Amino acid sequence: MSSVAEPRVLIAGASGFAGAIAARLVDRHPFFALGPVTSRSDAGRRLDELYPHHRVTATLEQLDLERLDDVEAAIVAYPHGASAPVAAALRERGVRVVDLSADFRLRDQAVYEATYVPHEAPQLLPDAVYGLTELYRDAIRDAGLVANPGCFPTAALLALAPLARAGLIADVVVDAKTGVSGAGRAPSETTHFVSIAENVRPYKVGAHRHTPEIDQELAVLGAPVATTFVPHLVPLDQGELVSCYVTPPEPVGQAALDELYRAAYASEPFVDVVPVPPGVRDVRETNYCALHARVDPRSGMVLVFAAIDNLWKGTSSQAVQNLNLMFGRPETEGLV
Amino acid sequence: MSSVAEPRVLIAGASGFAGAIAARLVDRHPFFALGPVTSRSDAGRRLDELYPHHRVTATLEQLDLERLDDVEAAIVAYPHGASAPVAAALRERGVRVVDLSADFRLRDQAVYEATYVPHEAPQLLPDAVYGLTELYRDAIRDAGLVANPGCFPTAALLALAPLARAGLIADVVVDAKTGVSGAGRAPSETTHFVSIAENVRPYKVGAHRHTPEIDQELAVLGAPVATTFVPHLVPLDQGELVSCYVTPPEPVGQAALDELYRAAYASEPFVDVVPVPPGVRDVRETNYCALHARVDPRSGMVLVFAAIDNLWKGTSSQAVQNLNLMFGRPETEGLV
Amino acid sequence: MSSVAEPRVLIAGASGFAGAIAARLVDRHPFFALGPVTSRSDAGRRLDELYPHHRVTATLEQLDLERLDDVEAAIVAYPHGASAPVAAALRERGVRVVDLSADFRLRDQAVYEATYVPHEAPQLLPDAVYGLTELYRDAIRDAGLVANPGCFPTAALLALAPLARAGLIADVVVDAKTGVSGAGRAPSETTHFVSIAENVRPYKVGAHRHTPEIDQELAVLGAPVATTFVPHLVPLDQGELVSCYVTPPEPVGQAALDELYRAAYASEPFVDVVPVPPGVRDVRETNYCALHARVDPRSGMVLVFAAIDNLWKGTSSQAVQNLNLMFGRPETEGLV
Amino acid sequence: MSSVAEPRVLIAGASGFAGAIAARLVDRHPFFALGPVTSRSDAGRRLDELYPHHRVTATLEQLDLERLDDVEAAIVAYPHGASAPVAAALRERGVRVVDLSADFRLRDQAVYEATYVPHEAPQLLPDAVYGLTELYRDAIRDAGLVANPGCFPTAALLALAPLARAGLIADVVVDAKTGVSGAGRAPSETTHFVSIAENVRPYKVGAHRHTPEIDQELAVLGAPVATTFVPHLVPLDQGELVSCYVTPPEPVGQAALDELYRAAYASEPFVDVVPVPPGVRDVRETNYCALHARVDPRSGMVLVFAAIDNLWKGTSSQAVQNLNLMFGRPETEGLV
Repeated sequence: MSSVAEPRVLIAGASGFAGAIAARLVDRHPFFALGPVTSRSDAGRRLDELYPHHRVTATLEQLDLERLDDVEAAIVAYPHGASAPVAAALRERGVRVVDLSADFRLRDQAVYEATYVPHEAPQLLPDAVYGLTELYRDAIRDAGLVANPGCFPTAALLALAPLARAGLIADVVVDAKTGVSGAGRAPSETTHFVSIAENVRPYKVGAHRHTPEIDQELAVLGAPVATTFVPHLVPLDQGELVSCYVTPPEPVGQAALDELYRAAYASEPFVDVVPVPPGVRDVRETNYCALHARVDPRSGMVLVFAAIDNLWKGTSSQAVQNLNLMFGRPETEGLV
Repeated sequence: MSSVAEPRVLIAGASGFAGAIAARLVDRHPFFALGPVTSRSDAGRRLDELYPHHRVTATLEQLDLERLDDVEAAIVAYPHGASAPVAAALRERGVRVVDLSADFRLRDQAVYEATYVPHEAPQLLPDAVYGLTELYRDAIRDAGLVANPGCFPTAALLALAPLARAGLIADVVVDAKTGVSGAGRAPSETTHFVSIAENVRPYKVGAHRHTPEIDQELAVLGAPVATTFVPHLVPLDQGELVSCYVTPPEPVGQAALDELYRAAYASEPFVDVVPVPPGVRDVRETNYCALHARVDPRSGMVLVFAAIDNLWKGTSSQAVQNLNLMFGRPETEGLV
Repeated sequence: MSSVAEPRVLIAGASGFAGAIAARLVDRHPFFALGPVTSRSDAGRRLDELYPHHRVTATLEQLDLERLDDVEAAIVAYPHGASAPVAAALRERGVRVVDLSADFRLRDQAVYEATYVPHEAPQLLPDAVYGLTELYRDAIRDAGLVANPGCFPTAALLALAPLARAGLIADVVVDAKTGVSGAGRAPSETTHFVSIAENVRPYKVGAHRHTPEIDQELAVLGAPVATTFVPHLVPLDQGELVSCYVTPPEPVGQAALDELYRAAYASEPFVDVVPVPPGVRDVRETNYCALHARVDPRSGMVLVFAAIDNLWKGTSSQAVQNLNLMFGRPETEGLV
Repeated sequence: MSSVAEPRVLIAGASGFAGAIAARLVDRHPFFALGPVTSRSDAGRRLDELYPHHRVTATLEQLDLERLDDVEAAIVAYPHGASAPVAAALRERGVRVVDLSADFRLRDQAVYEATYVPHEAPQLLPDAVYGLTELYRDAIRDAGLVANPGCFPTAALLALAPLARAGLIADVVVDAKTGVSGAGRAPSETTHFVSIAENVRPYKVGAHRHTPEIDQELAVLGAPVATTFVPHLVPLDQGELVSCYVTPPEPVGQAALDELYRAAYASEPFVDVVPVPPGVRDVRETNYCALHARVDPRSGMVLVFAAIDNLWKGTSSQAVQNLNLMFGRPETEGLV
């Protein structure tokens, strides 16, 4: 197996929203080549039949682990639980994996199993690298298995990392607003147009499974807190805004806050610290995260707003950003 | 001037979103009769030309304070600053007024003037009654001038009143999501469809003028806090959800919380304590507020969600609810 | 069985969008009382759990034809094919039926069976009255079984009836735009928010089953044409606009056209001939149809636009309008 | 003036929706370089302040015709009437122009003036090339002044050209549905979110100024008809669907129709003849037009549906497609 040119990338679960975007990004990537695109439900259909906009003409097939000889990498877009065994099988065959599910995000198997289901490949947990690129860039370069973060943790951690590292988070509320594509392609009462249109509502209050993931990483960054996290569904398809309300242990000034964020992200290609609070429209269908931090003058709380596209930086384009690192490519290749 | 039947109600500023709904509600009201409907910008046009859906056939005219002989009440839907002198003139003529602007909401003239503009009728401040019906019902019955609350304070205070009265608010964050009709009928970059569609963004961060109003009333209720309040624009026309994150001074149990809210609103005709977090769609074009309170099991914070229609309970139907009280009518008349 | 007061109305299939609105309208109706509300899929749940906005507190149950002693009327909101046997059983028990399905709309059994499925109660076809109120008002008063029209035929026939009766339709194209609620409550790829948002697309091109219904009634009115009918899905929940392009057999003048429509609908309580082309927002959640007719000055074609709410005048409120007639009530009762 | 590398392209009127997209496409183009970006209303602001999503960092300036020495081409995004004198001035300086306005689309000055305003540069009309790339490719290569088509004519003419050339259009109705961005960036009652949301309505019935443009080009193609054209506003930002209803002079079979369209567009890089009726979402933010033609089996009419992005293929990306031709570049450069 060599990488002279165009390593082929398998997309497992390419018929879902995230997998399809991954396939599109790899298909148009200057360096990678699109390998098999697989689907358990739609094998035999062309991907552009499901997603005309992506214009990927490959035909979906069933995943066949015995026919991966020239596949060097994989993006696995399976539901949690289903992903772990596939990722394990791919790793055994030497394929480098970016897993979009939650299966390898939580380092503590017990926390994973309390949050999700029994883990089917716990032996891989020690080697999995958490794939929030801006936080784990160096480890990702050499990783065999990258656990791509959840969309909410991606936005929340980019918003909060500078404060956490500076010891400025005593307590935090994360109020998130997300488009409905985050609920996936499966039709349901939740994803019915009539349920979403002209509506805004909180969901999974006090129980969203991204919360332990946020807390795990905040602790690593130096803020061992129990985040209060509430997501809300809003009537749009793609896009996610997190509004973070941080109680600092001591008063913070606006100038210091500005410098903290400027310094943290000055050299990041995909994080923009913007002069006014961002809207999700600003980053639609991009790998960018737009951030804005502000001290509330009345209460002294620190407010941080982060906007991403939940399916791009929140999922699939971040996977490609990680693949770029894993194969020694410029981090922005195929993404700008 | 007598009230044998059908007191006539002037709607001043009926060409705006709120004034037009007020005109519609009064026009169909079993007890009140629609008096003059006035507009500074659209005099001469029929109201149903501007708002076909409301089906009010009255013609807009210029406000003429000399021709109000048979008008017993008025709903004034003017911008802040413009409202005070008109309300004063109406009071001088014995007309009972529900004012939809901010001009009489803040009891402290200095706070008003720091937040808005110099006050043109401060002599009326002592007699104005804050028109959040559920909190000031008795005073409203006898009031000559009711200061109808802001839409955000309406939802936030209904959400927080039980906690405030019980001494359970040490600190509070209010993250609000609102439809764009709250920005009014005037076309602007903010209200352009393309600015709102596929977007979610915070606005007036740390500076929204409803914040002092919320704090004033929380203090009255027993919670003298500096609320952190951030509104967000979401892509819908009418509807408002406030998500309140309360740090209690001591741990609160879910059972006690449930009982607190049940007891507080058991006899309220327009406040529903609902078993799941509400969506704004549930209360669209109604005078209802749907509430849900929950202890976050991880952080111990108390979460309260309140959904209203910003133009109805948040503005115009609450004005009619108040008019009902002022004229000794059943509070729900014309509203269910 | 007597009608001293408040005849009870069964709503069969009340968990769907149309049935739920029918339940709401009957529940609030001054004359009728809400009888059993039934559902095959959601029996045991309260209706306001499914549809908080409608505020109907009745509990859904399985339909039990043996327990209908005090039911005098029924609105049957079943899919085509499923409705016929239920309607037949209800008629046998003397219950007057408004059927929302297609089962009794087409007079010719062969046309029905070519369009839908084998007919399970063809014996009722001769007595069924087509329930477009404005066209069949007198027959509806005495009907035992009313076949409520499809939403597209409702709008198209109200738009075209004056022209058809005047012999002014040589050929006609009906281009319809509808909100997604017309596709029903069942989640599917079609009704997924992401399929509808930021999209417009034609569907069932050349094959929509409302076409024979339109043609049947146009022939009755005097225009035996083969209508070209194409519906389009647009990103809104409720509302329907039909744009009709009529080739007249001879040139028509605007003044004559205006008079034709004015005269046709001058005394109709729910049809408004409006001075500018209507939008569906104008009639949202009402029983009104807004109409506008115009001669295209360049081509000489006659353009007629009709806006309705597909679930109200297009379905459930028209059913109540018919019930009003069947029970000798004012036609507008409970609907304005 | 030479073109050794990267000819600089002026964008005049870059603060509007169309001009900003043109600036973005040129800014990222492999061959062209972004020259001055000008604005009459927003000079001094950075373009990414107005349009964060486009990520163009250039600063808007006032147009200065004396400082264009190294500008080789211009895209002029001015309103009709305002564009002609600017285009003339640019042509005098040897700049090759793609004009997005209507000023040079109508060959007959009298028709232009009857439709728009007095023409300020009629001397340029004989040399202007109509910029529907697929119809005028060869002439565009050598053109000094390209009159970029209107968005509706772009979609309608691509839909109808094969039929027109084959002599198959005896009469035609074009029913168009467009997102609100077509109305431009200026805030107005029309573009207010609340006017558009939950609404669909026809506008400029019988009077839209794109109609003479469609007819002019249909005549050139061999179909001298008076098109009946009605546009409708639908609640989305970008996207346009035209539904064309063609009465053929003689019956057309589906197989012949399929072959007609296949042959017409087999080698076109940006026109896709698709197997099912397209949605506008399929082509969002692309230069593609998706087409589908169908014989209505009942009426014999030929139905053709075309979906484009009104701001891309309908305006700005087609301008870049034309620039590519004018400078001898691959037609798809910078557009796929």
